[in-house]
Amino acid sequence: MTAPARPIRVVAFGGGHGLGASLRALRHAAREVELDITAIVTVGDDGGSSGRLRVERDALLPPGDLRQALAALADHDPTAQLTAQVMQHRFVAMSEPGVSPAPPAARGPRLERRADRSKDTLAGHTVGNLLLLGLMEMLGDPVRALDHAAAMVGARGRVLPMALHAVGIEADVTDGSGRRSTIRGQHSVAVVDGRVESVRLEPADPPACPQALEAVRAADWLIFGPGSWYTSVLPHLLVPGLAREIVASPARRLVTLNLGTDKETHGLSAAAHLATLHGYLPQLRVDTVLADEKWAGEPEPVRAAAQRMGAELVLAPVAVADGSPRHDPEALGVALVPVLGAAR
Amino acid sequence: MTAPARPIRVVAFGGGHGLGASLRALRHAAREVELDITAIVTVGDDGGSSGRLRVERDALLPPGDLRQALAALADHDPTAQLTAQVMQHRFVAMSEPGVSPAPPAARGPRLERRADRSKDTLAGHTVGNLLLLGLMEMLGDPVRALDHAAAMVGARGRVLPMALHAVGIEADVTDGSGRRSTIRGQHSVAVVDGRVESVRLEPADPPACPQALEAVRAADWLIFGPGSWYTSVLPHLLVPGLAREIVASPARRLVTLNLGTDKETHGLSAAAHLATLHGYLPQLRVDTVLADEKWAGEPEPVRAAAQRMGAELVLAPVAVADGSPRHDPEALGVALVPVLGAAR
Repeated sequence: MTAPARPIRVVAFGGGHGLGASLRALRHAAREVELDITAIVTVGDDGGSSGRLRVERDALLPPGDLRQALAALADHDPTAQLTAQVMQHRFVAMSEPGVSPAPPAARGPRLERRADRSKDTLAGHTVGNLLLLGLMEMLGDPVRALDHAAAMVGARGRVLPMALHAVGIEADVTDGSGRRSTIRGQHSVAVVDGRVESVRLEPADPPACPQALEAVRAADWLIFGPGSWYTSVLPHLLVPGLAREIVASPARRLVTLNLGTDKETHGLSAAAHLATLHGYLPQLRVDTVLADEKWAGEPEPVRAAAQRMGAELVLAPVAVADGSPRHDPEALGVALVPVLGAAR
Repeated sequence: MTAPARPIRVVAFGGGHGLGASLRALRHAAREVELDITAIVTVGDDGGSSGRLRVERDALLPPGDLRQALAALADHDPTAQLTAQVMQHRFVAMSEPGVSPAPPAARGPRLERRADRSKDTLAGHTVGNLLLLGLMEMLGDPVRALDHAAAMVGARGRVLPMALHAVGIEADVTDGSGRRSTIRGQHSVAVVDGRVESVRLEPADPPACPQALEAVRAADWLIFGPGSWYTSVLPHLLVPGLAREIVASPARRLVTLNLGTDKETHGLSAAAHLATLHGYLPQLRVDTVLADEKWAGEPEPVRAAAQRMGAELVLAPVAVADGSPRHDPEALGVALVPVLGAAR
């Protein structure tokens, strides 16, 4: 007699668009293998709307990356999709020429109080960021806030923060002339011009989210990447409580490599991406490294770097067709099925 | 053979807290008689958050009264109620001493960027107003936006605007020394110090909401009041297209009188409230006037005013127990059951 089948428990780490691609790929894979998906999301964002909410309203967590993960997991029925869509809706600046919140034909004669767009203070915020802020302020409990937002979009999985409060990200950087300096703030690190030598969190030991630790303990698979390597993928390994649980977890581990470099990883090879993870958490054993052969190029250095972490290299065509360095969620999902299914 | 029973179609007109009480009462009544509820809501608000959204973002409709109606109709299951609750959540000013968006124990050490609460621009807005604004901007269609927000709270009825764009409200007012002046803006009229002589909309002929006209045509009952008489109850009769449909509708009509006066109706008797409706729309035939005997006092003048509109006066204890001039939704619901049931 075999044990009754239960879903494969998958925990995906990351932030921003990379995590969104990973989660959308898991949604595709879930058509073939039954998955129980948890996203564990970075909480270092200090740019744009999230950064303003941290400064202006002392937001417990920067909501932007959490909102992206919720949108990626939203149920596909039209009502849930429209809710996800309005959560992603960004208020455009009214002062931009030609911007109108409604078709001109729908608007009536001007009123007694004329619009004064110069006072527009909502521009740049998304509806979902403000909703998550409101839920966190009202409930005082970020996990309850996220679980409710997940229910609102019928999320096919759970979204959790990597820590219970917002953190700062700092990097030591060397510029073209060899001068070293410290860059503070996730946004500044992500767009840095020099070479990132090391990153750290501020504070260095933020409280990990207990429900995230539980998810790691119970997982069958832990998935790292794709995403901004220093500011979305690595930060999880820098939360000491979370890193301990990742090392101790009986789960298999998958690293999905990026499809190119960005500002913060300029000059870093695919193999060096793996070496960076290994450097920050030497105890991290990895089972599978998934890469697209287009970017990995000559696979030997990548395979060697993977083997140093105990991992097998799997090459698969997972990029979008237009040649840009983005994952195609469906192709990535197809590549994930045999990998995740092998855990049974 | 009798025709298969269908719900009694009820249309409730109003705005703000008065309409909220009316809708909550209908929810109670719906336990006894099956109701199909539509709220038709004033769109004149220019105060507070709604007023700012009109000025700053040229909001198609002021969302505040619409949000209140949605919250009143929200399903009673815990998820829908929490969604309604966060829609009603108002961002408090961070500059107020002691205000913290989260329990201090949940907060970590301070970050590299210190909170600067002086920049707080969300204070005063509710989450639901920003959600409705986002939906209206994204969809460009206020009815589709409201239908989706209704789905988000599992609303037990439909919420529609009385017109397709925001309107202004103006009043001619006489002060204590007999001086006459014009007051512009719903908020200013609602808190006026003098006697309101007449009110009008600006523009005078806003486009009525087609779905609201359909609801009036198909209704079994039209319910006016309670609420701010000049700024929430009367405005519907001032939209020419809507007034024509109200007069032509085969529905029975109920007027629920207030339980006292407020600033805008200071000195106006219960009978004079009815005379005011009659004055603005002389063709308005009314079937039932529902009043609490405490405020109606000696009922003869009220009964006479009701009879001049063709209506029977029904007295019932519908006020809250603490003596304040607010309707108790359950008591009002109990009083509504025999009135609405009589339509069959």
